[in-house]
Amino acid sequence: MIPNFIGEFDKEYLPKRTLEETYKITHFIVEKVKTARAFLKAIEHPTHQNDFVFVELDKHNNYEGFKRFFNEHIAAHSIGVLSEAGLPAIADPGSEVAKYAHTKGVKVVPLAGSSSLFLALMASGFNGQNFKFNGYLPIDTRERVKALKEMENRSRKASQIFMEAPYRNNQFIEFLIKNLQNDTKLCVAVDIEKEGKETIISKPISAWKPREIELHKKPTIFIIEG
Amino acid sequence: MIPNFIGEFDKEYLPKRTLEETYKITHFIVEKVKTARAFLKAIEHPTHQNDFVFVELDKHNNYEGFKRFFNEHIAAHSIGVLSEAGLPAIADPGSEVAKYAHTKGVKVVPLAGSSSLFLALMASGFNGQNFKFNGYLPIDTRERVKALKEMENRSRKASQIFMEAPYRNNQFIEFLIKNLQNDTKLCVAVDIEKEGKETIISKPISAWKPREIELHKKPTIFIIEG
Repeated sequence: MIPNFIGEFDKEYLPKRTLEETYKITHFIVEKVKTARAFLKAIEHPTHQNDFVFVELDKHNNYEGFKRFFNEHIAAHSIGVLSEAGLPAIADPGSEVAKYAHTKGVKVVPLAGSSSLFLALMASGFNGQNFKFNGYLPIDTRERVKALKEMENRSRKASQIFMEAPYRNNQFIEFLIKNLQNDTKLCVAVDIEKEGKETIISKPISAWKPREIELHKKPTIFIIEG
Repeated sequence: MIPNFIGEFDKEYLPKRTLEETYKITHFIVEKVKTARAFLKAIEHPTHQNDFVFVELDKHNNYEGFKRFFNEHIAAHSIGVLSEAGLPAIADPGSEVAKYAHTKGVKVVPLAGSSSLFLALMASGFNGQNFKFNGYLPIDTRERVKALKEMENRSRKASQIFMEAPYRNNQFIEFLIKNLQNDTKLCVAVDIEKEGKETIISKPISAWKPREIELHKKPTIFIIEG
């Protein structure tokens, strides 16, 4: 399980051990081959690009493609699972591969790297003894408000982490400011590990002003604490 | 916010960027000075041990000690928050410092490293789109069973991550096998990032046998999925 970069495309953001374990691998299950090749180039993988063997996770076919690939190669090769960004299997379909490997009795090794969720939580100042990652809220407005209110209730006991599609981030933060209570605390973490751009703001809803931060298409993590 | 090691005490387990940012820091808020010194030695911090300035988080005094230290040094120095193991502020009191920094308008920068919680979740094969970290279960037997059953219910929608005091791990896994349903899946992740010792097993309760794994005093993460 190999983490990808979340900000700078620079191998200094990954532990040497993660790099060295990845250098031993030539067979990969990935979301997109193009991103995977760019990652392997950025980490200066010693294998020639022509010699890598990839399969893409094909969720439309009940993941039959990666399973065939897995069974074909696992006897002779370690297989890497590479995410599009951050830790594979966290907010990411890579968990299907780990699940399959366990059913086959194949050892699963997680390699350390960056995760925007956890870096945001670390820096938020919110409760890190109990927390929940909720993924995305529902699209439908009524369900979305209901889901947010439920999260706000739960946030008294456990920090609630969530995301939005990046092109809707600006509307989303307005939605949060409008619908959350004044004393609920909101952390917005933007562009984590982007040198010079990283911004992490943590304060009560009453102190957030509309449009005070530009989030359009920027990778952003939202966390609330009641 | 500086991560500590979780397994091997070896700087290859941390990103070069985390090391280099830490090398710039000489003033630290820590849980225990002794552990902090050992960490700074292991990462080969260029500053002489005599020139470090530490304060311990003193929760018994409502954290007054670190606040005084923070206000005394923040104008002239960046201040590092160093955990005992893994990411500070995740299952760790470091979040008090991040919270205080936000109230003072001081920028909080999270540095990447390893977290046993997230490495365990990555490798579990369980739902990584929705998950909750619960910390420790209550000690009282009746409350403990109740808390476990509630987690089991929630685990259908979100993976549930939790821990036990390491010296009670062997009794704890027996407790889990006895009280969870046969088709609930349990992941036990032991000695993560300990070279040659790391073990991650993920399977239904019905397939777990009593005493099949020795967990006494070993750092262990438990995860369930319904």
